[in-house]
Amino acid sequence: MEFSSKLLERAVNEMAQLPGIGKRTALRLVLHLLKQPKEQTELLTSALLKMREEIKFCKECHNISDVDVCEICANPSRDQSVICVVEDIRDVMALENTGIFKGLYHVLGGKISPIDGVGPSQLNIHSLVDKVKSGSVKEVIFALSSTMEGDTTNFYIYKQIKDCEVTTSAIARGIAIGDELEYADEVTLGRSLMHRIPFESSLKNM
Amino acid sequence: MEFSSKLLERAVNEMAQLPGIGKRTALRLVLHLLKQPKEQTELLTSALLKMREEIKFCKECHNISDVDVCEICANPSRDQSVICVVEDIRDVMALENTGIFKGLYHVLGGKISPIDGVGPSQLNIHSLVDKVKSGSVKEVIFALSSTMEGDTTNFYIYKQIKDCEVTTSAIARGIAIGDELEYADEVTLGRSLMHRIPFESSLKNM
Repeated sequence: MEFSSKLLERAVNEMAQLPGIGKRTALRLVLHLLKQPKEQTELLTSALLKMREEIKFCKECHNISDVDVCEICANPSRDQSVICVVEDIRDVMALENTGIFKGLYHVLGGKISPIDGVGPSQLNIHSLVDKVKSGSVKEVIFALSSTMEGDTTNFYIYKQIKDCEVTTSAIARGIAIGDELEYADEVTLGRSLMHRIPFESSLKNM
Repeated sequence: MEFSSKLLERAVNEMAQLPGIGKRTALRLVLHLLKQPKEQTELLTSALLKMREEIKFCKECHNISDVDVCEICANPSRDQSVICVVEDIRDVMALENTGIFKGLYHVLGGKISPIDGVGPSQLNIHSLVDKVKSGSVKEVIFALSSTMEGDTTNFYIYKQIKDCEVTTSAIARGIAIGDELEYADEVTLGRSLMHRIPFESSLKNM
Protein backbone atom coordinates (compact mmCIF):
# COMPACT_ATOMS: atom_id res chain seq x y z
CA MET A 1 0.00 0.00 0.00
CA GLU A 2 1.56 3.29 -1.08
CA PHE A 3 0.52 6.42 0.74
CA SER A 4 0.63 9.98 -0.53
CA SER A 5 1.44 11.19 2.98
CA LYS A 6 3.90 10.02 5.61
CA LEU A 7 1.63 11.29 8.40
CA LEU A 8 -1.22 9.19 7.06
CA GLU A 9 1.04 6.18 6.63
CA ARG A 10 2.28 6.39 10.21
CA ALA A 11 -1.26 6.71 11.59
CA VAL A 12 -2.44 3.73 9.52
CA ASN A 13 0.53 1.60 10.55
CA GLU A 14 -0.02 2.33 14.24
CA MET A 15 -3.73 1.63 13.95
CA ALA A 16 -2.98 -1.66 12.17
CA GLN A 17 -1.02 -2.82 15.24
CA LEU A 18 -4.32 -3.40 17.02
CA PRO A 19 -5.54 -7.01 16.96
CA GLY A 20 -7.95 -7.81 14.13
CA ILE A 21 -7.34 -4.47 12.40
CA GLY A 22 -5.67 -4.86 9.02
CA LYS A 23 -4.18 -2.06 6.93
CA ARG A 24 -7.35 -1.55 4.91
CA THR A 25 -9.54 -1.28 8.00
CA ALA A 26 -6.96 0.99 9.62
CA LEU A 27 -7.06 3.28 6.58
CA ARG A 28 -10.86 3.37 6.71
CA LEU A 29 -10.80 4.29 10.41
CA VAL A 30 -8.13 6.94 9.97
CA LEU A 31 -9.90 8.53 6.99
CA HIS A 32 -13.08 8.58 9.08
CA LEU A 33 -11.23 10.54 11.77
CA LEU A 34 -10.01 12.95 9.10
CA LYS A 35 -13.60 13.62 8.00
CA GLN A 36 -14.82 14.23 11.56
CA PRO A 37 -14.11 17.41 13.55
CA LYS A 38 -10.66 17.56 15.15
CA GLU A 39 -12.27 17.24 18.57
CA GLN A 40 -13.19 13.61 17.97
CA THR A 41 -9.55 12.63 17.44
CA GLU A 42 -8.57 14.65 20.50
CA LEU A 43 -11.24 12.98 22.65
CA LEU A 44 -10.22 9.52 21.45
CA THR A 45 -6.50 9.99 21.97
CA SER A 46 -6.85 11.68 25.34
CA ALA A 47 -9.21 8.94 26.58
CA LEU A 48 -6.75 6.25 25.50
CA LEU A 49 -3.72 7.99 26.97
CA LYS A 50 -5.44 8.81 30.25
CA MET A 51 -6.70 5.25 30.58
CA ARG A 52 -3.28 3.76 29.83
CA GLU A 53 -1.55 6.00 32.31
CA GLU A 54 -3.98 6.22 35.19
CA ILE A 55 -5.87 2.96 35.26
CA LYS A 56 -5.28 0.76 38.28
CA PHE A 57 -5.72 -2.90 39.01
CA CYS A 58 -7.57 -3.77 42.22
CA LYS A 59 -4.92 -5.01 44.64
CA GLU A 60 -7.31 -7.67 45.93
CA CYS A 61 -8.74 -9.24 42.77
CA HIS A 62 -6.66 -7.63 39.98
CA ASN A 63 -9.81 -6.40 38.26
CA ILE A 64 -9.47 -3.09 36.41
CA SER A 65 -10.43 -0.24 38.70
CA ASP A 66 -10.09 3.51 39.21
CA VAL A 67 -9.25 3.02 42.87
CA ASP A 68 -6.94 0.74 44.84
CA VAL A 69 -9.69 -1.70 45.83
CA CYS A 70 -12.44 -2.22 43.25
CA GLU A 71 -16.15 -1.71 43.93
CA ILE A 72 -16.83 -5.43 44.10
CA CYS A 73 -14.08 -6.18 46.63
CA ALA A 74 -15.01 -3.12 48.68
CA ASN A 75 -18.70 -4.07 48.82
CA PRO A 76 -19.39 -5.39 52.36
CA SER A 77 -22.62 -7.11 51.28
CA ARG A 78 -20.75 -9.55 49.05
CA ASP A 79 -19.66 -12.93 50.36
CA GLN A 80 -15.92 -12.58 51.01
CA SER A 81 -15.48 -16.33 51.44
CA VAL A 82 -16.36 -17.36 47.87
CA ILE A 83 -13.90 -16.57 45.10
CA CYS A 84 -14.62 -17.03 41.41
CA VAL A 85 -11.45 -17.42 39.35
CA VAL A 86 -11.70 -15.88 35.86
CA GLU A 87 -9.37 -15.15 33.00
CA ASP A 88 -9.95 -11.47 32.40
CA ILE A 89 -12.13 -8.49 33.13
CA ARG A 90 -14.58 -9.34 30.34
CA ASP A 91 -15.48 -12.51 32.20
CA VAL A 92 -16.16 -10.48 35.34
CA MET A 93 -18.50 -8.26 33.31
CA ALA A 94 -20.28 -11.30 31.83
CA LEU A 95 -20.72 -12.96 35.23
CA GLU A 96 -21.87 -9.71 36.86
CA ASN A 97 -24.51 -9.38 34.14
CA THR A 98 -26.15 -12.62 35.32
CA GLY A 99 -26.79 -11.04 38.72
CA ILE A 100 -26.42 -14.52 40.29
CA PHE A 101 -22.97 -14.38 41.82
CA LYS A 102 -22.57 -12.53 45.11
CA GLY A 103 -19.01 -13.50 46.01
CA LEU A 104 -15.70 -11.99 44.94
CA TYR A 105 -13.63 -12.50 41.81
CA HIS A 106 -9.99 -13.20 41.14
CA VAL A 107 -8.76 -12.09 37.71
CA LEU A 108 -5.79 -14.15 36.51
CA GLY A 109 -5.00 -11.92 33.55
CA GLY A 110 -4.73 -14.83 31.12
CA LYS A 111 -4.29 -18.57 30.93
CA ILE A 112 -1.17 -20.73 31.14
CA SER A 113 -0.18 -21.15 27.51
CA PRO A 114 3.40 -22.22 26.82
CA ILE A 115 2.88 -21.77 23.07
CA ASP A 116 2.22 -18.05 23.64
CA GLY A 117 5.01 -17.84 26.21
CA VAL A 118 2.62 -17.37 29.13
CA GLY A 119 3.73 -19.25 32.26
CA PRO A 120 2.22 -19.30 35.76
CA SER A 121 4.54 -16.52 36.92
CA GLN A 122 3.00 -14.04 34.44
CA LEU A 123 -0.46 -14.61 35.89
CA ASN A 124 -1.96 -13.49 39.20
CA ILE A 125 -1.87 -17.02 40.65
CA HIS A 126 0.44 -16.43 43.60
CA SER A 127 -1.84 -13.91 45.30
CA LEU A 128 -4.83 -16.27 44.88
CA VAL A 129 -2.97 -19.19 46.50
CA ASP A 130 -1.87 -16.89 49.34
CA LYS A 131 -5.45 -15.75 49.89
CA VAL A 132 -6.69 -19.35 50.02
CA LYS A 133 -3.86 -20.39 52.37
CA SER A 134 -4.71 -17.54 54.74
CA GLY A 135 -7.87 -19.53 55.52
CA SER A 136 -10.51 -16.88 54.88
CA VAL A 137 -11.81 -18.55 51.72
CA LYS A 138 -14.41 -21.32 51.86
CA GLU A 139 -14.96 -21.98 48.16
CA VAL A 140 -13.01 -21.41 44.96
CA ILE A 141 -15.08 -21.56 41.78
CA PHE A 142 -13.10 -22.15 38.57
CA ALA A 143 -14.72 -20.25 35.71
CA LEU A 144 -12.06 -20.33 33.02
CA SER A 145 -12.97 -21.12 29.44
CA SER A 146 -13.10 -24.80 28.66
CA THR A 147 -9.98 -25.08 26.50
CA MET A 148 -6.73 -26.95 26.89
CA GLU A 149 -5.14 -23.81 28.35
CA GLY A 150 -8.08 -23.18 30.66
CA ASP A 151 -8.02 -26.75 31.96
CA THR A 152 -4.24 -26.61 32.47
CA THR A 153 -4.56 -23.39 34.45
CA ASN A 154 -7.41 -24.78 36.54
CA PHE A 155 -5.39 -27.88 37.35
CA TYR A 156 -2.22 -25.92 38.15
CA ILE A 157 -4.09 -23.81 40.70
CA TYR A 158 -6.04 -26.79 42.02
CA LYS A 159 -2.82 -28.69 42.79
CA GLN A 160 -1.57 -25.79 44.90
CA ILE A 161 -4.70 -25.35 46.98
CA LYS A 162 -6.08 -28.89 47.21
CA ASP A 163 -4.52 -29.45 50.64
CA CYS A 164 -6.09 -26.30 52.07
CA GLU A 165 -9.46 -26.43 53.78
CA VAL A 166 -11.37 -25.11 50.81
CA THR A 167 -14.13 -26.41 48.56
CA THR A 168 -13.27 -26.24 44.86
CA SER A 169 -15.89 -26.25 42.14
CA ALA A 170 -16.10 -25.64 38.42
CA ILE A 171 -18.93 -23.97 36.50
CA ALA A 172 -21.28 -26.48 34.83
CA ARG A 173 -20.64 -27.46 31.22
CA GLY A 174 -23.60 -28.54 29.15
CA ILE A 175 -26.11 -27.64 26.49
CA ALA A 176 -26.81 -23.91 26.41
CA ILE A 177 -30.37 -22.76 27.09
CA GLY A 178 -32.24 -22.70 23.77
CA ASP A 179 -29.77 -24.98 21.96
CA GLU A 180 -30.88 -28.07 20.07
CA LEU A 181 -29.39 -31.37 21.21
CA GLU A 182 -28.61 -32.62 17.73
CA TYR A 183 -26.18 -29.77 17.05
CA ALA A 184 -24.24 -30.14 20.30
CA ASP A 185 -20.78 -31.70 20.14
CA GLU A 186 -20.40 -35.12 21.75
CA VAL A 187 -18.06 -33.96 24.53
CA THR A 188 -20.45 -31.27 25.74
CA LEU A 189 -23.42 -33.64 25.44
CA GLY A 190 -21.53 -36.39 27.27
CA ARG A 191 -20.59 -34.00 30.06
CA SER A 192 -24.14 -32.73 30.41
CA LEU A 193 -25.33 -36.32 30.77
CA MET A 194 -22.63 -37.25 33.28
CA HIS A 195 -23.27 -34.20 35.43
CA ARG A 196 -27.07 -34.38 35.29
CA ILE A 197 -28.96 -32.67 38.08
CA PRO A 198 -32.18 -33.54 39.98
CA PHE A 199 -35.16 -32.58 37.80
CA GLU A 200 -36.59 -30.36 40.54
CA SER A 201 -33.40 -28.24 40.49
CA SER A 202 -33.69 -27.74 36.75
CA LEU A 203 -37.12 -26.16 37.25
CA LYS A 204 -35.69 -23.34 39.34
CA ASN A 205 -35.44 -20.05 37.58
CA MET A 206 -32.37 -17.90 37.83
CA MET B 1 -22.27 -3.07 29.48
CA GLU B 2 -21.18 -2.09 32.98
CA PHE B 3 -17.57 -1.12 33.53
CA SER B 4 -15.61 -1.31 36.74
CA SER B 5 -13.67 1.79 35.74
CA LYS B 6 -14.74 5.17 34.35
CA LEU B 7 -11.41 5.55 32.54
CA LEU B 8 -11.95 2.25 30.78
CA GLU B 9 -15.54 3.13 29.98
CA ARG B 10 -14.56 6.45 28.43
CA ALA B 11 -11.83 4.83 26.31
CA VAL B 12 -14.22 2.12 25.11
CA ASN B 13 -16.96 4.63 24.30
CA GLU B 14 -14.57 6.80 22.29
CA MET B 15 -13.18 3.80 20.44
CA ALA B 16 -16.72 2.62 19.66
CA GLN B 17 -17.34 5.92 17.82
CA LEU B 18 -15.22 4.60 14.97
CA PRO B 19 -17.21 3.09 12.09
CA GLY B 20 -17.66 -0.68 12.29
CA ILE B 21 -16.29 -0.85 15.84
CA GLY B 22 -18.91 -1.94 18.36
CA LYS B 23 -18.56 -1.81 22.13
CA ARG B 24 -17.31 -5.37 22.40
CA THR B 25 -14.61 -4.87 19.76
CA ALA B 26 -13.69 -1.55 21.35
CA LEU B 27 -13.26 -3.27 24.71
CA ARG B 28 -11.06 -5.94 23.11
CA LEU B 29 -8.87 -3.29 21.47
CA VAL B 30 -8.58 -1.20 24.62
CA LEU B 31 -7.71 -4.23 26.78
CA HIS B 32 -5.06 -5.13 24.22
CA LEU B 33 -3.52 -1.68 24.63
CA LEU B 34 -3.55 -2.18 28.41
CA LYS B 35 -1.58 -5.41 28.03
CA GLN B 36 1.02 -3.84 25.73
CA PRO B 37 3.77 -1.48 26.92
CA LYS B 38 2.69 2.13 27.47
CA GLU B 39 4.77 3.19 24.48
CA GLN B 40 2.37 1.53 22.04
CA THR B 41 -0.54 3.67 23.22
CA GLU B 42 1.67 6.75 23.09
CA LEU B 43 2.80 5.97 19.55
CA LEU B 44 -0.76 5.35 18.40
CA THR B 45 -2.21 8.48 19.95
CA SER B 46 0.62 10.75 18.84
CA ALA B 47 0.41 9.42 15.27
CA LEU B 48 -3.33 10.04 15.17
CA LEU B 49 -3.10 13.51 16.70
CA LYS B 50 -0.21 14.59 14.49
CA MET B 51 -1.99 13.33 11.40
CA ARG B 52 -5.25 15.06 12.30
CA GLU B 53 -3.51 18.34 13.00
CA GLU B 54 -0.84 18.53 10.33
CA ILE B 55 -2.18 16.70 7.32
CA LYS B 56 -2.87 18.80 4.25
CA PHE B 57 -5.00 18.39 1.21
CA CYS B 58 -3.34 19.07 -2.15
CA LYS B 59 -4.70 22.40 -3.34
CA GLU B 60 -4.83 21.13 -6.91
CA CYS B 61 -6.49 17.72 -6.63
CA HIS B 62 -7.57 17.60 -2.93
CA ASN B 63 -5.66 14.37 -2.40
CA ILE B 64 -4.15 13.89 1.07
CA SER B 65 -0.61 15.20 1.14
CA ASP B 66 2.15 16.39 3.44
CA VAL B 67 2.83 19.39 1.22
CA ASP B 68 0.70 22.02 -0.53
CA VAL B 69 0.82 20.32 -3.92
CA CYS B 70 0.88 16.51 -3.86
CA GLU B 71 3.54 14.36 -5.54
CA ILE B 72 1.24 13.39 -8.38
CA CYS B 73 0.21 16.95 -9.26
CA ALA B 74 3.82 18.17 -8.92
CA ASN B 75 5.18 15.43 -11.21
CA PRO B 76 6.02 17.09 -14.58
CA SER B 77 6.08 13.76 -16.42
CA ARG B 78 2.37 13.20 -15.84
CA ASP B 79 -0.19 14.31 -18.39
CA GLN B 80 -1.69 17.52 -17.01
CA SER B 81 -4.52 17.51 -19.53
CA VAL B 82 -6.23 14.30 -18.39
CA ILE B 83 -8.13 14.35 -15.10
CA CYS B 84 -9.56 11.29 -13.44
CA VAL B 85 -12.41 12.14 -11.05
CA VAL B 86 -12.56 9.87 -8.00
CA GLU B 87 -14.46 9.75 -4.76
CA ASP B 88 -11.69 9.53 -2.19
CA ILE B 89 -8.02 8.92 -1.60
CA ARG B 90 -8.43 5.14 -1.47
CA ASP B 91 -9.53 5.23 -5.12
CA VAL B 92 -6.38 7.18 -5.99
CA MET B 93 -4.31 4.49 -4.27
CA ALA B 94 -6.17 1.72 -6.11
CA LEU B 95 -5.75 3.40 -9.51
CA GLU B 96 -2.08 4.21 -8.86
CA ASN B 97 -1.51 0.53 -8.08
CA THR B 98 -2.52 -0.40 -11.65
CA GLY B 99 0.37 1.67 -13.00
CA ILE B 100 -1.75 2.42 -16.10
CA PHE B 101 -2.91 5.95 -15.49
CA LYS B 102 -0.43 8.77 -16.13
CA GLY B 103 -2.71 11.78 -15.82
CA LEU B 104 -3.86 13.71 -12.76
CA TYR B 105 -6.62 13.01 -10.28
CA HIS B 106 -9.38 15.07 -8.77
CA VAL B 107 -10.63 13.85 -5.40
CA LEU B 108 -14.25 14.86 -4.75
CA GLY B 109 -14.25 13.80 -1.11
CA GLY B 110 -17.52 11.89 -1.40
CA LYS B 111 -20.59 11.47 -3.57
CA ILE B 112 -23.77 13.51 -3.79
CA SER B 113 -26.09 11.72 -1.40
CA PRO B 114 -29.11 13.69 -0.15
CA ILE B 115 -30.01 10.85 2.25
CA ASP B 116 -26.69 11.37 4.07
CA GLY B 117 -27.01 15.14 3.82
CA VAL B 118 -24.18 15.46 1.28
CA GLY B 119 -24.90 18.05 -1.41
CA PRO B 120 -22.69 19.29 -4.28
CA SER B 121 -21.44 22.20 -2.16
CA GLN B 122 -19.78 19.85 0.36
CA LEU B 123 -17.74 18.20 -2.41
CA ASN B 124 -14.75 19.53 -4.35
CA ILE B 125 -16.80 19.98 -7.53
CA HIS B 126 -16.44 23.74 -8.00
CA SER B 127 -12.64 23.62 -8.35
CA LEU B 128 -12.94 20.81 -10.93
CA VAL B 129 -15.41 22.75 -13.05
CA ASP B 130 -13.18 25.84 -12.83
CA LYS B 131 -10.17 23.80 -13.96
CA VAL B 132 -12.09 22.41 -16.93
CA LYS B 133 -13.44 25.84 -17.86
CA SER B 134 -9.93 27.30 -17.83
CA GLY B 135 -9.34 25.23 -21.00
CA SER B 136 -6.22 23.32 -19.95
CA VAL B 137 -8.03 19.98 -19.64
CA LYS B 138 -8.60 17.74 -22.65
CA GLU B 139 -10.27 14.74 -21.03
CA VAL B 140 -12.23 14.12 -17.84
CA ILE B 141 -12.50 10.45 -16.83
CA PHE B 142 -15.30 9.63 -14.41
CA ALA B 143 -14.19 6.85 -12.06
CA LEU B 144 -16.80 6.96 -9.30
CA SER B 145 -18.32 3.77 -8.00
CA SER B 146 -21.29 2.54 -9.98
CA THR B 147 -24.05 3.30 -7.52
CA MET B 148 -27.04 5.61 -7.60
CA GLU B 149 -25.00 8.27 -5.77
CA GLY B 150 -21.99 7.79 -8.04
CA ASP B 151 -24.12 8.11 -11.17
CA THR B 152 -25.87 11.20 -9.79
CA THR B 153 -22.53 12.85 -9.03
CA ASN B 154 -21.14 11.96 -12.46
CA PHE B 155 -24.20 13.44 -14.14
CA TYR B 156 -24.16 16.59 -11.99
CA ILE B 157 -20.56 17.29 -12.99
CA TYR B 158 -21.15 16.29 -16.60
CA LYS B 159 -23.98 18.83 -16.95
CA GLN B 160 -21.68 21.63 -15.82
CA ILE B 161 -18.81 20.84 -18.16
CA LYS B 162 -20.57 19.42 -21.21
CA ASP B 163 -20.44 22.73 -23.06
CA CYS B 164 -16.69 23.08 -22.54
CA GLU B 165 -14.24 21.76 -25.12
CA VAL B 166 -13.46 18.62 -23.22
CA THR B 167 -13.83 14.90 -23.84
CA THR B 168 -15.66 13.04 -21.08
CA SER B 169 -15.35 9.34 -20.49
CA ALA B 170 -16.28 6.76 -17.87
CA ILE B 171 -14.31 3.71 -16.81
CA ALA B 172 -15.57 0.47 -18.38
CA ARG B 173 -18.08 -1.67 -16.49
CA GLY B 174 -18.11 -5.38 -17.14
CA ILE B 175 -17.15 -8.82 -15.95
CA ALA B 176 -14.05 -8.73 -13.75
CA ILE B 177 -10.98 -10.67 -14.91
CA GLY B 178 -11.22 -14.22 -13.58
CA ASP B 179 -14.98 -14.06 -12.90
CA GLU B 180 -17.41 -16.65 -14.20
CA LEU B 181 -20.19 -15.39 -16.45
CA GLU B 182 -22.91 -17.39 -14.75
CA TYR B 183 -22.44 -15.58 -11.46
CA ALA B 184 -22.46 -12.07 -12.92
CA ASP B 185 -25.56 -9.94 -12.38
CA GLU B 186 -27.64 -9.17 -15.46
CA VAL B 187 -26.97 -5.41 -15.47
CA THR B 188 -23.20 -5.89 -15.47
CA LEU B 189 -23.43 -8.63 -18.09
CA GLY B 190 -25.76 -6.51 -20.23
CA ARG B 191 -23.40 -3.54 -20.04
CA SER B 192 -20.37 -5.65 -20.89
CA LEU B 193 -22.23 -6.90 -23.99
CA MET B 194 -23.39 -3.42 -25.03
CA HIS B 195 -19.92 -1.91 -24.66
CA ARG B 196 -18.05 -4.79 -26.28
CA ILE B 197 -14.62 -3.98 -27.70
CA PRO B 198 -12.74 -5.20 -30.81
CA PHE B 199 -11.28 -8.65 -30.05
CA GLU B 200 -7.78 -7.46 -30.91
CA SER B 201 -7.97 -4.82 -28.17
CA SER B 202 -8.92 -7.44 -25.61
CA LEU B 203 -5.68 -9.31 -26.33
CA LYS B 204 -3.56 -6.38 -25.19
CA ASN B 205 -1.99 -6.83 -21.82
CA MET B 206 -1.98 -4.08 -19.28
